[in-house]
Amino acid sequence: MKHALSVTREQDFAAWYQSVITEADMAEDSGVRGCMVIRPWGYGIWERIQRLLDDRIKATGHENCYFPLFIPLSYFEKEAEHVEGFAKEMAVVTHHRLIPDGKGGLMPDPEAKLEEPLVVRPTSETVIGTAFSRWVQSWRDLPVLINQWANVVRWEMRTRMFLRTAEFLWQEGHTAHASAEEAKGETLKMLEVYRSFAEDCLGVHVIAGEKPENERFPGAIETWSIEAMMQDGKALQAGTSHFLGTNFAHAQNIRFQNAEGQLELANTTSWGVSTRMIGAVIMVHGDDDGLRVPPMIAPWQVVIVPMLRDQPEDAAIVDYARELQAQLVKQSALGEPIRAMVDARPAKAATKRWGWVKKGAPIVIEIGGRDVAGGNVSVIRRDRLYREDGKLDSQVVARDAFVGDAAAMLEDIQATLHAQSVEKLRANIVPIDDWAGVEAHFAEAAKNPGWVDVRWSKPTGAALDTVVERLKALKLTIRNAPAGQTGCDDGPCIFTGAPAVERILIGRAY
Amino acid sequence: MKHALSVTREQDFAAWYQSVITEADMAEDSGVRGCMVIRPWGYGIWERIQRLLDDRIKATGHENCYFPLFIPLSYFEKEAEHVEGFAKEMAVVTHHRLIPDGKGGLMPDPEAKLEEPLVVRPTSETVIGTAFSRWVQSWRDLPVLINQWANVVRWEMRTRMFLRTAEFLWQEGHTAHASAEEAKGETLKMLEVYRSFAEDCLGVHVIAGEKPENERFPGAIETWSIEAMMQDGKALQAGTSHFLGTNFAHAQNIRFQNAEGQLELANTTSWGVSTRMIGAVIMVHGDDDGLRVPPMIAPWQVVIVPMLRDQPEDAAIVDYARELQAQLVKQSALGEPIRAMVDARPAKAATKRWGWVKKGAPIVIEIGGRDVAGGNVSVIRRDRLYREDGKLDSQVVARDAFVGDAAAMLEDIQATLHAQSVEKLRANIVPIDDWAGVEAHFAEAAKNPGWVDVRWSKPTGAALDTVVERLKALKLTIRNAPAGQTGCDDGPCIFTGAPAVERILIGRAY
Repeated sequence: MKHALSVTREQDFAAWYQSVITEADMAEDSGVRGCMVIRPWGYGIWERIQRLLDDRIKATGHENCYFPLFIPLSYFEKEAEHVEGFAKEMAVVTHHRLIPDGKGGLMPDPEAKLEEPLVVRPTSETVIGTAFSRWVQSWRDLPVLINQWANVVRWEMRTRMFLRTAEFLWQEGHTAHASAEEAKGETLKMLEVYRSFAEDCLGVHVIAGEKPENERFPGAIETWSIEAMMQDGKALQAGTSHFLGTNFAHAQNIRFQNAEGQLELANTTSWGVSTRMIGAVIMVHGDDDGLRVPPMIAPWQVVIVPMLRDQPEDAAIVDYARELQAQLVKQSALGEPIRAMVDARPAKAATKRWGWVKKGAPIVIEIGGRDVAGGNVSVIRRDRLYREDGKLDSQVVARDAFVGDAAAMLEDIQATLHAQSVEKLRANIVPIDDWAGVEAHFAEAAKNPGWVDVRWSKPTGAALDTVVERLKALKLTIRNAPAGQTGCDDGPCIFTGAPAVERILIGRAY
Repeated sequence: MKHALSVTREQDFAAWYQSVITEADMAEDSGVRGCMVIRPWGYGIWERIQRLLDDRIKATGHENCYFPLFIPLSYFEKEAEHVEGFAKEMAVVTHHRLIPDGKGGLMPDPEAKLEEPLVVRPTSETVIGTAFSRWVQSWRDLPVLINQWANVVRWEMRTRMFLRTAEFLWQEGHTAHASAEEAKGETLKMLEVYRSFAEDCLGVHVIAGEKPENERFPGAIETWSIEAMMQDGKALQAGTSHFLGTNFAHAQNIRFQNAEGQLELANTTSWGVSTRMIGAVIMVHGDDDGLRVPPMIAPWQVVIVPMLRDQPEDAAIVDYARELQAQLVKQSALGEPIRAMVDARPAKAATKRWGWVKKGAPIVIEIGGRDVAGGNVSVIRRDRLYREDGKLDSQVVARDAFVGDAAAMLEDIQATLHAQSVEKLRANIVPIDDWAGVEAHFAEAAKNPGWVDVRWSKPTGAALDTVVERLKALKLTIRNAPAGQTGCDDGPCIFTGAPAVERILIGRAY
């Protein structure tokens, strides 16, 4: 079987990933260090993600705001731990004017140097916390439930499209509460929003759980994540939710008068997902013919390709295609009107067909003169591209029959992709009882080791550092301790030998 | 009649404008120079604008993309005229790391100075044009029809919320075409999209027309705008559409092989609207009780205020309110489901009522124990706040009758606000035949002079400079030459005395 991409997942997973992005016209290098151009197909997927997740963020009582791109240097000084943790590599604005450099070029004007440099936001806890300190005076002002869709910048040295770029797009939720319990509840509520969103909309099976102490967001009391498994067995952290306790409130002076008239610090949370999710979609659902987009986030769910030959009959074929489109957009699938488009560009039919296969449109319909004459359409399902004999599985069916089936077919594709993701993740988590077993597992299963599921005693401080170092030697990290555990008393910690308190997942990661 | 704001439009229009923004919780100062925090009510209006305009941008064949925030300095050097025109005051990133400054603070790391400074985009012609030069090879690749929703930064010295801020949010469309005719057609098509959007969705009457040469976007062949009239008679340019000819294509090397195999420069356009539109909405529709939001862009169209008194009967009032909400959201108004919410916060009913009046929710429904008992609701229409005797016009009607009428009422409010805007603009444009008349007009009608409509010969170069200087002495600018004129031969140019070729609008402006 010959595939549409020149490199397969088996041959070189990293090269395959980049090839999907290029061949599906999702993104490209921008010429600006570490920044990509997100092209319409990639951005269209992001718009779908935004729309569906935004609905869920609003349905849980949050409102969107917009805070400044620039954060004064002094805001970071207030939150020392925050800076120590990750925020050193940041883009710093120092000047506000350009002037000719006398050599035919331009330069920053030395006369226009800022008194206080501005940092391009790497995340917005500091600037949003400062606003919260103005907004929150009394218990009546709580909770404050805010979300922001924005671009952020972290000066990453090694970048990889969608997974790690200097500038990326995300949403960041920030909330303030009257009690620690309520803030912890919020942290887990949003974790669950992320988990169900990944499952239901992205078709990506994830494990929700708590990150170990060493992987916490700087300044957080607890950091929770959803972890997805890529087809090479590596983990991708696809979203995080942080319980910040009163740490940020203390630094930013978010205080309120409680019902008894006493001044208290608020408890805050923050939580975010980014364009990284698109990287997960590619590496979970892609195959050797390109991307496969789950219908819920596909910019176009049904792409209709009239097979044009520069002949007079072309007009009738395009008309027939548009009639089909008109029939489809009146149908509803997965809770919304079907998104169907006609690709009437003057290109060869095979080029267009394979272009849409590589982009991963869930259903591609081809229409030639014979289809028009017979009242038929030729249907290609992206999740069942080939027949058992290795040939392209293009099925001729009556147009009206297809229109009647389209919604169910899209729902089936969504469910199929999700089921495959569930199956792959389940099949690639191995419970192991001791450290020797972990070493052996990652030595043997070099190519696609998946994750191991082990008991531990949740050591902290120096004891945890030792564990992290042992794992690092094998390029492993603790992904999370899956949520919903009720204890773990059937054996000792694989690291310390002490009684275990919970199970954790360990693997290699992006 | 006592009003909700402490300052009226008549007393001090500028102070009134700021007061609406503050009292309606739309935005606030962020503490970061020139940047504001857009709060939920302001951002909710922007989200509605985005959604409705984005639908129209997509319906005309454009696709959304995302390009980098940072633009290398050298990109600006390519387009000298571009820089000369407006792009000097820009935020410049020179470093990519912070380190401790030895005095307990932070400073940019001198070791992490960028080889080439990066400019925070003031607009994206240069970086998008560079992408176009990669994408466009053949006539088959044209047209390229792209839009981006993004933040941009212009280092403005004097800022004013929504109207002029250092960072602002906008959409910028960028297109490339095979011919000048097609690109000009695109320029006017998008101008019409903006015009109809302003009229239909914002309820803001605008005049679409061409800007004079001196007001063109740097590098443009033609710049077109929509101009709205604020209640103080000043103009606000609410959107622009530029025909760039081959100027940018030349600087950015956007070339294609035409059907005959010859290499040609593409013709490009760009067009944008920004959060400035929210400033227009405030100054067109606001009154001395705050904002009045047209229903199409109101985050909530019907706000239901249960009048709670900390009594056992409160629960029944809230239930009744939620039942009403459930009935309303099943109705459709202005093409979408009605957006209705219940404000069950534990605050005084009068505080909540006036809070929503100041925010400009189109309909406020109050529900007390008596309403529940009688199966009624008390209805306040934001566009008819007071009765003739000066008292608040709160009408008690049967709940079911209100549910039946709600859609028509919202449609009527939308139409009423628009009609008022049309009437105000029409009443405040005065045709004048000579320069002396213009001088007299602006001397006499000092407070709210509106615009004058005059003939001119469309001088260029030095002759135009003279005209601009004469206008400037009276703080006037040419707004635009309204589109759709078929010549103007009934008198001479008021500036040059030469035969007039068209009519133009002149006024003071934001």
